[in-house]
Amino acid sequence: MVKGMMMAIAVASLSSTDPGAGKAVSRLITHIAEIEVDPAQLDAYKVYLAEEQEASVRLEPGVLMLNSVALADDPSHIRLLEVYANAAAYEAHLKALHFLKYKTATALMVRSLKLIETKPIRLCAKSSGAGGAAKCV
Amino acid sequence: MVKGMMMAIAVASLSSTDPGAGKAVSRLITHIAEIEVDPAQLDAYKVYLAEEQEASVRLEPGVLMLNSVALADDPSHIRLLEVYANAAAYEAHLKALHFLKYKTATALMVRSLKLIETKPIRLCAKSSGAGGAAKCV
Repeated sequence: MVKGMMMAIAVASLSSTDPGAGKAVSRLITHIAEIEVDPAQLDAYKVYLAEEQEASVRLEPGVLMLNSVALADDPSHIRLLEVYANAAAYEAHLKALHFLKYKTATALMVRSLKLIETKPIRLCAKSSGAGGAAKCV
Repeated sequence: MVKGMMMAIAVASLSSTDPGAGKAVSRLITHIAEIEVDPAQLDAYKVYLAEEQEASVRLEPGVLMLNSVALADDPSHIRLLEVYANAAAYEAHLKALHFLKYKTATALMVRSLKLIETKPIRLCAKSSGAGGAAKCV
């Protein structure tokens, strides 16, 4: 184990005994974005993307998770898993200044963007603190 | 905001000022699995999948996150974002009893499985507790 890198996730008040859990989970908005970037501008793009992810999760109460990865065999193809608390949170995100800045700054870097609507099945991760219990929604 | 559903994520000791952060992040193993399931067996499949996700994150120190979603317009197509602490954690996961149980139980339910190797760009979520600060790796 690499203690310094332990990622810890806590999902508050969402045990299976929580009578409101099912309804709350069904409100979650989850998307997958498939983004192809101009390879010549990939490094610059990733800086803007990471900045936008951090600002969104830091500043917006309803932006719960933004995870971006690049395909190992074609790093200019990026996938993003987005989790919002509800539809209103997603609508608010689309109007946030940091999101609009990212969209403007990267408009000529992105070759294609496919936004795929999804429904959450199970979102599981470590509870807060290394070695914490699993928490799932 | 739906307080009861607030998902909270803390990434310990991974601030940008942590001199070990870059190296630690580079050890993370991230995959996307694209799974097509027999529609007639979809409900049963999702029970096994959710059980396997929960057991893996609860029992295995190096399984940091397993998030599954279904495509909204074709729910028998499932995507899974997997985050492991390092290569050894991923190898251990493949030998875990709960994983082998899931693979055996669902072998005739899965029509196709595509495992896509990826590299993390940025993984961001709320720190522990509703309203917590953003944490990113």
